[in-house]
Amino acid sequence: MHVRVLGSAAGGGFPQWNCNCRNCDGVRKGTIRARPRTQSSIAVSADRGDWILFNASPDLLAQFRAFGELQPARSVRDTAVRAIVLIDAQIDHTTGLLMLREGPRLQVHCTPQVREDLTRGNPLFGILEHFCGVDWHPIALEPGATFPIAGAQGLSFTAVPLKSKPPPYSPHRNEPRPGDNIGVRIADTRTGRVLFYAPGLGEIEPHLRPLLAEADCLMLDGTFWTDDELIRLGVSAKRSRDMGHLPQSGPGGMLEALQSLRARKILIHINNTNPILDEDSAQRAALEAAAIEVAYDGMEVEL
Amino acid sequence: MHVRVLGSAAGGGFPQWNCNCRNCDGVRKGTIRARPRTQSSIAVSADRGDWILFNASPDLLAQFRAFGELQPARSVRDTAVRAIVLIDAQIDHTTGLLMLREGPRLQVHCTPQVREDLTRGNPLFGILEHFCGVDWHPIALEPGATFPIAGAQGLSFTAVPLKSKPPPYSPHRNEPRPGDNIGVRIADTRTGRVLFYAPGLGEIEPHLRPLLAEADCLMLDGTFWTDDELIRLGVSAKRSRDMGHLPQSGPGGMLEALQSLRARKILIHINNTNPILDEDSAQRAALEAAAIEVAYDGMEVEL
Repeated sequence: MHVRVLGSAAGGGFPQWNCNCRNCDGVRKGTIRARPRTQSSIAVSADRGDWILFNASPDLLAQFRAFGELQPARSVRDTAVRAIVLIDAQIDHTTGLLMLREGPRLQVHCTPQVREDLTRGNPLFGILEHFCGVDWHPIALEPGATFPIAGAQGLSFTAVPLKSKPPPYSPHRNEPRPGDNIGVRIADTRTGRVLFYAPGLGEIEPHLRPLLAEADCLMLDGTFWTDDELIRLGVSAKRSRDMGHLPQSGPGGMLEALQSLRARKILIHINNTNPILDEDSAQRAALEAAAIEVAYDGMEVEL
Repeated sequence: MHVRVLGSAAGGGFPQWNCNCRNCDGVRKGTIRARPRTQSSIAVSADRGDWILFNASPDLLAQFRAFGELQPARSVRDTAVRAIVLIDAQIDHTTGLLMLREGPRLQVHCTPQVREDLTRGNPLFGILEHFCGVDWHPIALEPGATFPIAGAQGLSFTAVPLKSKPPPYSPHRNEPRPGDNIGVRIADTRTGRVLFYAPGLGEIEPHLRPLLAEADCLMLDGTFWTDDELIRLGVSAKRSRDMGHLPQSGPGGMLEALQSLRARKILIHINNTNPILDEDSAQRAALEAAAIEVAYDGMEVEL
């Protein structure tokens, strides 16, 4: 299985257009060692011919331009992307659907909860009906059930609910439901190798433990280093955990949770304020000491 | 007055993600001499300190990254963009509003018709209320009336209706109204110099003639070279004029219309299929012979 990181940043990207925190200002001016990053998305393929897109970020067009394999140029209109899996209905994971409106009907896999938010609060599916149209493929959350994706020969997909909040525009904003956010287990059916992808992981729930333990590679929520990161910077009153993101540091944090796992460990969906973006930071060194990698745009993982 | 072209392409950009027409394939592979282009937007300033954004393209974040002056870095959160003018409610001119959701309330100037489409068919304004929020400033279309923009000292703005169609998701798709699409006259109040900006110009209507004649610079619809460009390529059944774009060639086309005008003439909002994108094409040579320029990303015009 081939995994290509199209975008490794959280919402807003890195640097964020209106932000001058140490990281954003530093990467713009070259005063810190860090790479710019676009918003959260990966592409997965068994054969490097057909690709499945996970999330459609607002930076989708820049991401496609940076990854030529998505355009095989077999006819006047073409794409290697066979389907799109949405892990939630947030702006930073869905707005890119609009950028795919010039092609054939989009094959979108998501839960009924995500579909509802994208037909009501933020009616992308309805808007797209005026262009390419969307074929919705429901993702069910029965434990252990795989969901099929046409064009994903050699890969098997299983979704699990993640405790989270639906987007602010969801009619269910204050009554979170299983299915608002998912993690996806992706297995190569030939080799048996497994990726577990969960860029919006807020809590290590009991049902996740076996998945984390068996996976060969984990791509997990890397949004914040500390729970009060935005509060300390004075840019928000929200805590990481309140926003549905497990911080990396501290008791019960991501570092602790990953400690005993055998998988290759990669953080993805990294907020622009997170000190791990500075490759010379103590926090980055702490990750390295724990054998935890930080995803970057263009990173490839072979499983 | 300083004019910066942030994006010079029509919807989809150039190359378009799913297109392998001669232009898109050629610019990707380097077999034609052409520049990639992002989607339609300009920024205008009297002092290079405060900027007014015209249209918010889906490529807004890449455009901001490419134009450092939009981030003056005076505080931890900052921007040089004081307001956004929308000339229509199309996806390629409005989706970028979502990318500005992390900042303060957006100051958006548009007609009541555009606002209606962005609160009903494609409810961007409503979605943004869950984030930064939008202060709507109505643009009236009384002949000769200027509309004020806070932060645009030294500039004066006048809007004129352009015959066009509202977007496919508009409740008024089949009953076009004045205000669905506008051209904007921008005057420098100190020097008296005038830009007329109309990237969605479908027809040289009588009320436009005096504006075209008096302007020092014209930035006009450069979407298609021929009326049947997409039909010939086999990618659409639509004609340029049916889509609200005046083609450049042929009787009554843009070249003919611009012939006798004294202004500096620049085509903008250029579709990926347009042969003028190929800098070695006969069509590009014809433009050059007529002293008509082709906008490119990063182009600057001083007036």
